[in-house]
Amino acid sequence: MSTSKIHGLRVCLLGSGNVATRLGIALKHAGSEILMVYSPTRKNAEKLGKLLGASAIDNLHNLPDDVDVFIICTKDDAIAPIARYLRKKNACVIHTAGSVNMDVLRSCKWHGILYPVQTFSAQREVDFGAIPMLIEANGSKSKTVIRKIASSLSGKVYWMNSKQRLHVHLAAVYANNFVNYMYQAAGKILEAQDIPFDILQPLIEETANKVKKLSPADAQTGPAVRNDQRIQKIHNVALKPSPRLRKLYKEISQAIYLEASGRK
Amino acid sequence: MSTSKIHGLRVCLLGSGNVATRLGIALKHAGSEILMVYSPTRKNAEKLGKLLGASAIDNLHNLPDDVDVFIICTKDDAIAPIARYLRKKNACVIHTAGSVNMDVLRSCKWHGILYPVQTFSAQREVDFGAIPMLIEANGSKSKTVIRKIASSLSGKVYWMNSKQRLHVHLAAVYANNFVNYMYQAAGKILEAQDIPFDILQPLIEETANKVKKLSPADAQTGPAVRNDQRIQKIHNVALKPSPRLRKLYKEISQAIYLEASGRK
Repeated sequence: MSTSKIHGLRVCLLGSGNVATRLGIALKHAGSEILMVYSPTRKNAEKLGKLLGASAIDNLHNLPDDVDVFIICTKDDAIAPIARYLRKKNACVIHTAGSVNMDVLRSCKWHGILYPVQTFSAQREVDFGAIPMLIEANGSKSKTVIRKIASSLSGKVYWMNSKQRLHVHLAAVYANNFVNYMYQAAGKILEAQDIPFDILQPLIEETANKVKKLSPADAQTGPAVRNDQRIQKIHNVALKPSPRLRKLYKEISQAIYLEASGRK
Repeated sequence: MSTSKIHGLRVCLLGSGNVATRLGIALKHAGSEILMVYSPTRKNAEKLGKLLGASAIDNLHNLPDDVDVFIICTKDDAIAPIARYLRKKNACVIHTAGSVNMDVLRSCKWHGILYPVQTFSAQREVDFGAIPMLIEANGSKSKTVIRKIASSLSGKVYWMNSKQRLHVHLAAVYANNFVNYMYQAAGKILEAQDIPFDILQPLIEETANKVKKLSPADAQTGPAVRNDQRIQKIHNVALKPSPRLRKLYKEISQAIYLEASGRK
């Protein structure tokens, strides 16, 4: 999978969080020029602006006219109010949210979506080239621009409508947020016994690697899928100090078993 | 972390499943001699015996006398009945289960535990050298033998009692079985939209890698930890066709939020 650099595309970035930071850096590497960064918090706009060699604003009335693309990477709730300031701009307006319909941008003439299927932290570098980019656009001009941007960032670009994107985001909540919570639960159980979390690292890595080759259904092992009630009872007793984890243990075990039985 | 090879240790392996297969291969590489494989199903004993250059039996009355170690890698329920046949043997008897107390082997003079914190598939090779080995033993002779075996397989050997081991196993259920179920749930959501599971691979990988550097609590992102009820409502509607996943979505989201609030 290869990316194709883009040159001289003038971008204004709205937002200064994890997505804005990581996307801004990746866009710059890919040949775009980040002209301006907006954040309602001046300090944040300036910090990211400095990193990207862009000017910083904290007032939406000062948005520039001479850019090709506005990319909104804010909290979901902020997309609609920001879009109102972009109605009359002669540029493509893009948002990057998984579960926000493209409709929210309908007052802007050219608009669309660039949704990277990844979790971002401001501090962690990620290899953008391997990140699936879900794109959507309202017309041929927007399509051309958004496809160009996506292809400059990643070798994996997919056209998807808002409904499909919503489902990918929902699946990502399971595969990322919920998985991470299972790690957190495991960490709590170990912590209560003074055992370091590191002891699980090879298991966590293998669990993630296994589903590259096997389907998750085929990769499943453990007491729930075997319906081993003896172990489940012992675990239930061990979880007495954590009613929250105990309840989840029961429900997820049940779901695993029912899912596996349904497949037989 | 380095391992220290062992030479001429004569092993009888009881079991022919994923753990027996992977452990048998690793023991052989580490210098042990697998003399015999037992399985109640002759065909399975013969298949693994052939792979390990060992003879095969399907009758516990035919267990050998001239081995140093018996390693029981069967289903948990089979450990006690098998141990009864080993009472009079002049060898160390080991089981490999996470949630079975060492007591189960008390009728054998020398006994102990070798629990690898990993998930095994018969077909997948794993790097044993990085797998944490939890060991326990009932006396100095067993301690010496079991530590030797563990150190021949892995550079990460930990003495843990049965209670600690149970908690590591319980944590592993969250970090492996439950995580894998979250992958399965994500796959189901995508499948209903004809979107391939592969689209989540970079996210799955990054989620697993993130907790090498950040604690799971610090790595958490998404609608639940932000208490973003707008998205949670949209997801709730999208999950209507899957009541099981819908219920889990609600409960895990709640757990994530409560856990995060409790930390503030």
